[in-house]
Amino acid sequence: MTAPDLPFDRPEYNRRLRLVRAEMEARELDLLFIEDPSNMAWLTGYDGWSFYVHQGVIVRRTGNPIWWGRAMDAAGARRTVWMGEECIAGYDDSHVQNPSKHAMEDLAARIHDLGLSAARIGVEMDNYYFSARAFLTLQRDLPNAVLVDATGLVNWQRLVKSPAEITFMRRAAAISEHMVDGWLDRAEPGMAKNDLVAGILSDAVRGADGHWGDYAAIVPMLPSGADAAAPHLTWNGAALQPDEATFFELSGCYRRYHAPLSRTLYFGTPPDEMRRAEAAVVAGLEAGIAAARPGATAGDVAAALFDTFAAHGIEKDSRCGYPVGLSYPPDWGERTASFRRGDGTVLEPGMTFHFMPGVWSDSWGLEITETILIREDGPAEALCDRPRALFVK
Amino acid sequence: MTAPDLPFDRPEYNRRLRLVRAEMEARELDLLFIEDPSNMAWLTGYDGWSFYVHQGVIVRRTGNPIWWGRAMDAAGARRTVWMGEECIAGYDDSHVQNPSKHAMEDLAARIHDLGLSAARIGVEMDNYYFSARAFLTLQRDLPNAVLVDATGLVNWQRLVKSPAEITFMRRAAAISEHMVDGWLDRAEPGMAKNDLVAGILSDAVRGADGHWGDYAAIVPMLPSGADAAAPHLTWNGAALQPDEATFFELSGCYRRYHAPLSRTLYFGTPPDEMRRAEAAVVAGLEAGIAAARPGATAGDVAAALFDTFAAHGIEKDSRCGYPVGLSYPPDWGERTASFRRGDGTVLEPGMTFHFMPGVWSDSWGLEITETILIREDGPAEALCDRPRALFVK
Repeated sequence: MTAPDLPFDRPEYNRRLRLVRAEMEARELDLLFIEDPSNMAWLTGYDGWSFYVHQGVIVRRTGNPIWWGRAMDAAGARRTVWMGEECIAGYDDSHVQNPSKHAMEDLAARIHDLGLSAARIGVEMDNYYFSARAFLTLQRDLPNAVLVDATGLVNWQRLVKSPAEITFMRRAAAISEHMVDGWLDRAEPGMAKNDLVAGILSDAVRGADGHWGDYAAIVPMLPSGADAAAPHLTWNGAALQPDEATFFELSGCYRRYHAPLSRTLYFGTPPDEMRRAEAAVVAGLEAGIAAARPGATAGDVAAALFDTFAAHGIEKDSRCGYPVGLSYPPDWGERTASFRRGDGTVLEPGMTFHFMPGVWSDSWGLEITETILIREDGPAEALCDRPRALFVK
Repeated sequence: MTAPDLPFDRPEYNRRLRLVRAEMEARELDLLFIEDPSNMAWLTGYDGWSFYVHQGVIVRRTGNPIWWGRAMDAAGARRTVWMGEECIAGYDDSHVQNPSKHAMEDLAARIHDLGLSAARIGVEMDNYYFSARAFLTLQRDLPNAVLVDATGLVNWQRLVKSPAEITFMRRAAAISEHMVDGWLDRAEPGMAKNDLVAGILSDAVRGADGHWGDYAAIVPMLPSGADAAAPHLTWNGAALQPDEATFFELSGCYRRYHAPLSRTLYFGTPPDEMRRAEAAVVAGLEAGIAAARPGATAGDVAAALFDTFAAHGIEKDSRCGYPVGLSYPPDWGERTASFRRGDGTVLEPGMTFHFMPGVWSDSWGLEITETILIREDGPAEALCDRPRALFVK
């Protein structure tokens, strides 16, 4: 078998493991079990659509991480992780979606065999994939262990991107630009929305600048007209209508790294209220990007946006940004800091966020967003370079 | 606002609610909270990519179900569910991915307001999306309630499809056929795999027979050569190679309904061992389909396949099929019955399964699968009509 085509070199994975171990030490964890597929991939390189069954990575205070999952997926682990065969553990297929046997029974037995059945064990209590039953099964089968909530422990280590990761983000951003160029070129009144999506997904996967495209953690969302008041509708077969706005929230993806980029398209002459919202969003983006510098907080960026909105007569207080990078469905965000008033996360160079001001009225929605990189000094850099405006055709 | 474009009529939703209520009664549940997005959609019509935050449907013994989720997604609920405004409940955005506030605090308060804080409440303990923390928060905030595991309660009611659902499955199957025709036509040695996927996704979304295509709950998986020993790898930018097999596991999707169809393509002259595997899989499919009739069990289908495999010298005992229908990521299976030796689920007309014999050696993988419908009598019907063979080019 050929060696895995790892996205990053070993020093990069060692850096990540050191960061996680330092935090485990600070929290006095002997063992960390992570089920979040993004965290699994970030630490080990594991890649595959197998997260619909229980799987995870076991991190101890010493030694290599252990990939643990369904036996048939161990073949995928061998092809994608940097650790050797001795660090790949598969459980019997009879545990799969079987109410009478839980995969966590196998995990508990392995933790026992590692001599850590009475350890302090971190688990991701509020993550997709680590279910309530998974937790209760571990608790029952490891009665002497102390299970500690380690939700976000790894996610927070992912906040500052390495130069190698930023290279991946730039490739994802180039794909996002290519996707925007494509839908803007092809969209016209009367076109069925699913036909437009066919082109978007094709552009996403073909990639850009010689780099192939991966699947994004969220499918394209492109509601039109009054439906655009609902931010998370996907698509249907209806025709695009004149005198309506459609916003396109989507992201290119390069080897699981994302750089979301939203724009809004109006066919005809936009109503004045949309033009006013556009002015507020563009000014708010500029204010937020100017505020997004090392030493400022995530809350400062939100405040810069919301204060600008207020000056334009728009009251808004929902979350307007989140960190992005490596991700798997159902979310391309990293689920740590938020651009939200009062969020005290201090910005550092190398952090990347999807800064996403949106204005949703009862009868239309407008999104103009940027993926931004916190620089060594000065305002943040937008990774994509497309006009920051309401597009009109 | 225009009325939601519901996939099904009200009698169909009433039928579903009656089935769920009967099971609630049998289990003496006063309230059922379901977070599985497939169950939410099946019961209410709700559709949107918002399942990356906590949301759900509340079912009581009387009255309409209540959609509950993030306030901004209530706008999506208004556009997609059959219930009225009084049955849509949004929680404040400050609960979103905020370690200091959990959305389940809001849900617990609402259950209290419904007068059901001391009720027997069913929750989906082993589902993606209902996290360990969600469970503990409900338990803490509803100390007088009895939380009962209702994993799969709704899923089991979905097992027998109505005629309207079978129509959707047939439309999905037509899209699956269209996808297979497309990749078989376009694939050639030297082609970059992501370029091939671009066409597959485009075909999937354009749809077939005038019916638009939705996103499938799993992205295309198409590993080649030795990588095909790993069943759940997705794709990369590598070129397709001569003298290698690639299996394509994918599904068309019509309004969230799936009909997966896998085939395998070999460039050149397949080795004898692959031809032998092909013969076993084709004979096993035939034997399984012949066994898949009303009154037989899911285990009987698996036994028919595995006995045929054994007669061909192949030992296999992993799960070889599961129910399919309406689904959201990360799994297009319904997670109830399994085609697995000993599964006692009795087959009934209207059940639909992805019957998926796969043979994976250390150096190649072969999948030829069918989505099948249990008929009133006689063997099952394969919903797709494409040659049941190893494709060779």
